[in-house]
Amino acid sequence: MNPQEAGIGEGISEVIVTTKSAAGKPNAAPIGIISEITEQSERSYFVTLYKGSQTLANVLATGRLAANVTSDAVLFVETAFDDLPRECFTDFAGLPVLREANAWIIFTSELVEERQEYLRFQLRSAAVKIDQTEVKAINRGLNAVIEATVLATRLRIATEKRERQELRQELERCAAIVAKCGGTRENQALAILREKVF
Amino acid sequence: MNPQEAGIGEGISEVIVTTKSAAGKPNAAPIGIISEITEQSERSYFVTLYKGSQTLANVLATGRLAANVTSDAVLFVETAFDDLPRECFTDFAGLPVLREANAWIIFTSELVEERQEYLRFQLRSAAVKIDQTEVKAINRGLNAVIEATVLATRLRIATEKRERQELRQELERCAAIVAKCGGTRENQALAILREKVF
Repeated sequence: MNPQEAGIGEGISEVIVTTKSAAGKPNAAPIGIISEITEQSERSYFVTLYKGSQTLANVLATGRLAANVTSDAVLFVETAFDDLPRECFTDFAGLPVLREANAWIIFTSELVEERQEYLRFQLRSAAVKIDQTEVKAINRGLNAVIEATVLATRLRIATEKRERQELRQELERCAAIVAKCGGTRENQALAILREKVF
Repeated sequence: MNPQEAGIGEGISEVIVTTKSAAGKPNAAPIGIISEITEQSERSYFVTLYKGSQTLANVLATGRLAANVTSDAVLFVETAFDDLPRECFTDFAGLPVLREANAWIIFTSELVEERQEYLRFQLRSAAVKIDQTEVKAINRGLNAVIEATVLATRLRIATEKRERQELRQELERCAAIVAKCGGTRENQALAILREKVF
């Protein structure tokens, strides 16, 4: 099985990346896995990890990460701002993964680029497990939660007044879409996000 | 099988609605199916159809519509602005449906509300078919195509200068997300959208 069958499509796939520290402590954070098509029509996978993040520290310590494929809005928001309790994790191929995810892909990492703010790694699939497949219509509320999480992460570090104002405006636009189109999970996720940053 | 198992979740599910005219001509358009939870914890389904649309004319003529569940970006953009060729359709329970969809739900419709601009129908599931299930990570590029399609539809009827300017700005924000996060299908979809309205 390859990452594509487990839901990692072309472009950037938004997943929850789980890792463990050298001491074995699990971590989870929403991160994009980049999938590019090579000249030989093969898939290459990459990830950009920001300096100062726990995910980067763990990947440097262990050389591995797990991509957890899920469409649960609450998981994205929670892992963006908080540590998950231990009971959310289980073990797959020696790494902590999320019980609730639909699929897990274990990647090994190779440092390919260093920039001032981030490191870029090439990823190679080491193990894949699909727990459940489904059919699911697009929900604009779910999408808006993901956008709002991205915006909220930026708002947390933005200092300039005008930028903060624009981010807040965009956040309110997302919130209106969640209220109109989302289900229970999307509205729960937005409520958590509002507590954190709005 | 119920609509929920076929991907119609709580909130508004963005699907391609297919219908046929009294003369049997198929039509396809991207439309949201509204799913509400009743006080008895059951699901109720509704749809809002705008006056002047072919979908409304067909639903009034036949009393039925099909919800086609798909996450193909190009299908959303194409059906928003153009007629699909006959070969895109097949037949399910007497209605035209999209060959490429992951699931089909046939609904019967009952008019429950009339407003100046639209009619609202309650929907009842008459037949369900799941063609394929999958696991698929969230792609912000796909989401941005859906948002861009909604914005483009509004831009087509907007007359006020300031509103048109704002819609164009939001469209460019979506286009940037598609370019960054989308795969081939999302970029194809955006190219079609650009031709139509940008």
